[in-house]
Formats: sequence, C-alpha cells, structure tokens
Amino acid sequence: MSGIDLSVAAARAALTPLGLDLADEDAQHRYAVAVWCQLVEPGDSAAGRVVASLGPVEALVRLAAAAEFAELTARENSDARKRWLPRLSSRGVSDMLRIAGARGVRLVTRREPAWPQQLDDLGPHAPMCLWVRGDVGALARLDPSVALVGARAASGYGDLVARELAAELAGSGVPVVSGGAYGIDGAAHRAALSAGGLTVALLAGGAERAYPAGHTQLIDQIAATGVVASEVPCGSAPTKWRFLQRNRLIAALTTATVVVEAGWRSGSLNTAGHAATLGRGLGAVPGPITSPGSSGTHRLIREYGGAACITSADDVRELLGLSAVTRGDGGMTHGSGGARAGGSRPASAGARTDDTTRVRDALSARVGRDADDVARRAGMAVDDVRAMLGLLRLEGMVLAAADGWRLPSAHG
Amino acid sequence: MSGIDLSVAAARAALTPLGLDLADEDAQHRYAVAVWCQLVEPGDSAAGRVVASLGPVEALVRLAAAAEFAELTARENSDARKRWLPRLSSRGVSDMLRIAGARGVRLVTRREPAWPQQLDDLGPHAPMCLWVRGDVGALARLDPSVALVGARAASGYGDLVARELAAELAGSGVPVVSGGAYGIDGAAHRAALSAGGLTVALLAGGAERAYPAGHTQLIDQIAATGVVASEVPCGSAPTKWRFLQRNRLIAALTTATVVVEAGWRSGSLNTAGHAATLGRGLGAVPGPITSPGSSGTHRLIREYGGAACITSADDVRELLGLSAVTRGDGGMTHGSGGARAGGSRPASAGARTDDTTRVRDALSARVGRDADDVARRAGMAVDDVRAMLGLLRLEGMVLAAADGWRLPSAHG
Repeated sequence: MSGIDLSVAAARAALTPLGLDLADEDAQHRYAVAVWCQLVEPGDSAAGRVVASLGPVEALVRLAAAAEFAELTARENSDARKRWLPRLSSRGVSDMLRIAGARGVRLVTRREPAWPQQLDDLGPHAPMCLWVRGDVGALARLDPSVALVGARAASGYGDLVARELAAELAGSGVPVVSGGAYGIDGAAHRAALSAGGLTVALLAGGAERAYPAGHTQLIDQIAATGVVASEVPCGSAPTKWRFLQRNRLIAALTTATVVVEAGWRSGSLNTAGHAATLGRGLGAVPGPITSPGSSGTHRLIREYGGAACITSADDVRELLGLSAVTRGDGGMTHGSGGARAGGSRPASAGARTDDTTRVRDALSARVGRDADDVARRAGMAVDDVRAMLGLLRLEGMVLAAADGWRLPSAHG
Repeated sequence: MSGIDLSVAAARAALTPLGLDLADEDAQHRYAVAVWCQLVEPGDSAAGRVVASLGPVEALVRLAAAAEFAELTARENSDARKRWLPRLSSRGVSDMLRIAGARGVRLVTRREPAWPQQLDDLGPHAPMCLWVRGDVGALARLDPSVALVGARAASGYGDLVARELAAELAGSGVPVVSGGAYGIDGAAHRAALSAGGLTVALLAGGAERAYPAGHTQLIDQIAATGVVASEVPCGSAPTKWRFLQRNRLIAALTTATVVVEAGWRSGSLNTAGHAATLGRGLGAVPGPITSPGSSGTHRLIREYGGAACITSADDVRELLGLSAVTRGDGGMTHGSGGARAGGSRPASAGARTDDTTRVRDALSARVGRDADDVARRAGMAVDDVRAMLGLLRLEGMVLAAADGWRLPSAHG
C-alpha cells in the first residue's frame, strides 16, 4: 500500500514537522486528512462522500485495501481508484508535511474551532482541509466578509476602485478576501493592509509559495497580519482546474463577492457564478461601457439574476446586510459634485421643509390624487403644491401615476 | 368674455395664419383647442377632464359663461377659474396663432391621423394638442422609438456614448427622441441627423423658438428632416414646471427611455420616473463610479425596480423588443479586446466543439450531476469532462450547483 502507515506512532511521526500537540485519535485523523489532500484534486465529490461517510482514516484504510466503497457506484469506484491510488505514497505526504512545517503552514481540519463553517455549504465539494499561513484564528471571523476580485490586467480605474473599496471596508472592520493575483486582487489586498484591516488570500497552489512569484512580498505581508490559505497541499502547482476550484472557495468563504473589473470572459465571472450558486451576495462595479475591462461586470449586472450595482463601500455594506444606506450623493464621487454633477434641468433643494411634509401627508401610496386634491388636503395653494410635487418627484419621494400623484409604495 | 368669439367665422379667421383647410366644425374644434392651450399649464388634469367630457368648444363656452363644471368639485371649479380665466383673451390667442403661422408651426390635435396615440396613456394629464415644426406625419411613426436623455453638463464619455448609441439606432431605423438641450440631448440629436435617421426634439417652451438659443441651428436642422414639437403654444417661455411636464411627454411618446449620463439629482431622472410610471421601457448606461455624471444612472439601475443596464445599441433594441441579442463580446468596446479584456485567469476558446455538445447533452437543468456522472453519460474521459466543464462554466453555459453540474435553466 505504498508505505502509508496509519498507526498512531506513524501519524505522529509524520505530523512532527507541523509541531502540533496531538492526542492519539487526533493524530490519526489529521494524518489521514493530509493524505487525502495529497490524493485528490479540489472539489472531488466522490472523495468528499466517502470521507464524510467513513471518516478519513477508515476511508483511507479501505482505499489502501482496494475495498469497494458502498458510497460509490462500481464505475465511480473504478474511476476513483484510478485517480487516487497513483498518488498514494508516504514519500509524497512526508515531503508535503516537511515543506509545511518549514514554511509555517498549519493544517486546519473541520474539527477545529478555526474551521470556517460556511465552507460546508459546498457539500461533498467542500475542501478536506485548509493549509494556512498567518492568523489561523481569523478564519473563524469571516462572517461577514467580502471578496473583492477582478481582472489581472486591471485598468487605472479598476485599480483605483479596488483600492478605495478595500481600504474603506477593511478599515471599518470588514475582512477583504481575494486571490492574491496581479491587478484587482493585489490592489484590494494592499489597500486592506494599508488600512490596518484583515485580509485573506486564497491561493490556487500550495500556501507555502507565492503565486504569482512577483507577489512574494505581498503574500508574506498578508500572512504577517492576516491569512494566506489553500486547500491543496504544500508543493502543489497552481493548475487551471485548481484556479477554478479556488474561485469556489473564495465565494464560499465570504458573505458576498464583488467583481470590481472584469472582461467579458474573465475568470472572476467564474467566482461570481459560484457566489450566485451558493446563494451568497453578488455585486459588480460598473464602469465605462467603452472599456472592455468592464464588459464582464456589466454582464453580471444584467445576467445571473442581476448582480447588485456597486458604486460605493456603502453599497457593499448593504449587500452584506451590515447597515441601511443613507445616501445623498453619488457614493465614490470626488471633488466638487455641484460642478460636475450633470446639473441638468431643475434640481431640488436638499432640505426637508414643513411644506414637503404637508404635501407628502396629503398623498397616498394606493390611489393617485390631482395636485388640486393634494392642495386641498394639504391646505396649501395649488401652485405651491405643484412646484413642491415637481421637486419631490425629482428626488423619487413622490410618483406621478396615470391617475395622479402618489407616494412610492416601497418607501415611507 | 374677453373677446373670444367661437363662431365658425371667427374660428376660421383666427386660424387663417395656420393655412389649414377647415370644415366648419373642425375650425371651431381646432380653435377651441388652441384657446385651451393658451389657458392651461401642461398636465392640468382638471382641464383634461372637462375637455374630454364636454369637448373643447362646449367646455370653453361654459368657462366663458362662468358656468360650473359638473366634472369638478366646487373647490376645483373655483381654483380652475382662478387659473384659467385670467388668460382668456382673444389677443393672446391671435398672437400665438400669428407666431405659429409665421414660423411654420402646425397645430396637431388628437383628431388627426398624425396624433401619437401613445400620449393618451397620460389620461387627463395628456396634452391638449401638439405644436409641431417639421414632418408632422412622422409623429405617428414613433412606435417603436427611443428617448436618449441625460445631463446638460455631459462628460466626454457621456457625449461619446450618446453619439454612438444615437447613430447606430437612428441609422438602423429607430427614431431618437430627446429634449434639444445641451449635452446628451444635443449629442443624440446630432448623431441621429448625421446617420440620416429620424430624430424628434420635444421642447419645454414654444416650438417656434430654440431653447437653448445656442441650439437654434440644431433645432432648425431637426425640423428640416424630423420633428420639433411642444405642447405649449408659440410664445411660451420654458419654465421649470414646463420642463418637468415636457419630460413626461418624452417618456410617454417613446417605447423606452435610456438615460445616458446623469448626476445624482439630474432632471433626466424625472423623465426616467415618468417612463417607469407609464410602464415604458427604462434603461441607463453605466459609467465610472468615480464620475458624478454617472451617479444618477447607477441610481436608476439600482432603484426604480431596476433600469436595464445598457452597454450597446443591441441592449437598447432588446429593451424595445426589436430583436434577440446575440453577443459574444462587450458590446460598445473598441480596439483590441484581447489586450485590454481583463484577460485574467483561464478563459475559454470561442469555438463550439463536438465535445462541448456531448458534455452539455449529458447535463440537466433540473438535477446536478458529478463530473464522473457526466463523463459516463457523455462517454468521455472524466478528466476531459472536468476541463470542458471548467471552460463551459466560464462562458456561463453550465453551472456548478451544490449538487453538481447543471445546465442554466434560462438558456437552452
């Protein structure tokens, strides 16, 4: 059986590099999970089912004994053995554990308090474990949290938006999760770090090495105060499949995914699809329709049941269910709003007045009323009422229906 | 009674400047409508009710005789007389008709074939008539048509988008309606003219004069091949109230309103509100969230039950119900998509292959299936199936649900 010895002594010896304080059964359990990690690719639901059903130790014993898994069909048994057995070697496992120990990568299984339970929403596709650098305990504090993801080839616009959203959110206590890549991911991580907030990088390859290599320093900085994690064991290269599966982890780990900038076929649409499938919040930042870099986010706003149109950190907080939005301007707009605010045609004054209240009091959300009717009910001159209704309408506080003026039914 | 003589002879004499060929009853009717136009502000539903009930001639006779209108309450009768009677003078009417005749402005009432019947959706708020320069018959050809509106203080981005949308839509036979203002309105009109398409300007003041004055030449060009129209009589200044009411006309006249660029409190949100109230299509073009000029369009996408996110002329056509959208790229994106398309992470090849078909054939929209299951059904190697599913997912052609891979239910 390729030298995998599941005895307590062997398990303890194998796990020694990780420096864990292990009880007997715990040692066996962890060791078996680590071995399974080495055997399967992320998202392997056959492995997920047999491990969930039998526990990692018993499942591994049966695999090594070439026993059939009752949880799988005959064909699945055959396929699974073809996938898993070629990787079953104690050498591979010990190499992996040695690297983890040397690079300070911890093994976190679902038995531990730090395990982020929201990952279990993935069912049989959930990861067997996480390999983690940094503040392991922070993994349990990601509800709520937000994934800020997007194109590697970010534009200056995308980079700016990612930085501003990440800094404001992380700075106000919302953990920012991303994929550690160039472009949007990197901008989000950096800004979250600068703001003194918690940021988490989920990698597609082993957690011990930075990918891309140009982000080695950034990944180290993230591990110093936050978390760098992967479900694939140390020594694993990031493959296309692992990127796709890593995207599902980003979506599953967070309360909402916000795509900051993405081309028409960007991989971050894959993350968005996972978020939608999992019932997580999904938002997308609009941009110039003349920029290919925003065509993917506009696609999300139109499709996938409609990603929320995100224009500010407040919009993200609303998506996370964190606070009601009180907005009187365009969110992340800078400078002199008055000068550039389009200012076309008459716009209303901001202040609420007694007259406003009287006019609104005279309206109903159920039936439309003429201005004359409203004036009578409000005890005001009809021309004053007309002017007021026009102003209120610009602010969306009243509606002009075919049968007259009404209050919007959604609002107070 | 201030000199208004409703005899056929007087009506014919008054209407002579308009050069119409009038039968007796028609002359009286038109003259009475013209007088009512002079008496009421746009959207006066009390006037709308008495004219609809009694006809314009009889309603005018009663008004002049200071008779009560059974259609109105005592208070409304009192208010209405206070509003209407001060304007009742034959001098004002004849001035107005003289200007109209001199400037080639035609009177179009709802009796004529050219009357755009969609305006009747406004009920008692519908205009009494339209004062029209240009191709009167084109008024009856605005179903479908699109309103392209937005900020006067347009950015270069908004200007570009308005021009491209208007040129492509008008050039392909979709009439473009707007308000003749600086900024987005002007850009839309100009591009529609350049594309050889039909464009309609609805003015808040009298149709005989350009507002703004700086658009005198543009308004003349619109009248030369298209339509310039207003519901207020010649000689009327554009007031705030008339701008608001003109916005309702733009929304009512068109199949859909698309706001191209708008600040947080832009008047074009008022037009959008009318479109939503009237059940017309409503779209908004996204832009940079750092630009105050797009904060209003983003607001529309989020609020008002969600304006459609418009990124191309095809999106507008879809809003108008004109054609199914077949898109493979980001719509109005220019240049080398490959270089700027965000290109992050793996993206799939565009071409459909037999393997794609086999994989999709093996999937269901109702139940999720493991890759193993799909491979078995498709008769393919499971690793090939996994790779294919990953690619298809990026394109939104398959979904990964908690219970496995599925076909999206919306698509084939």
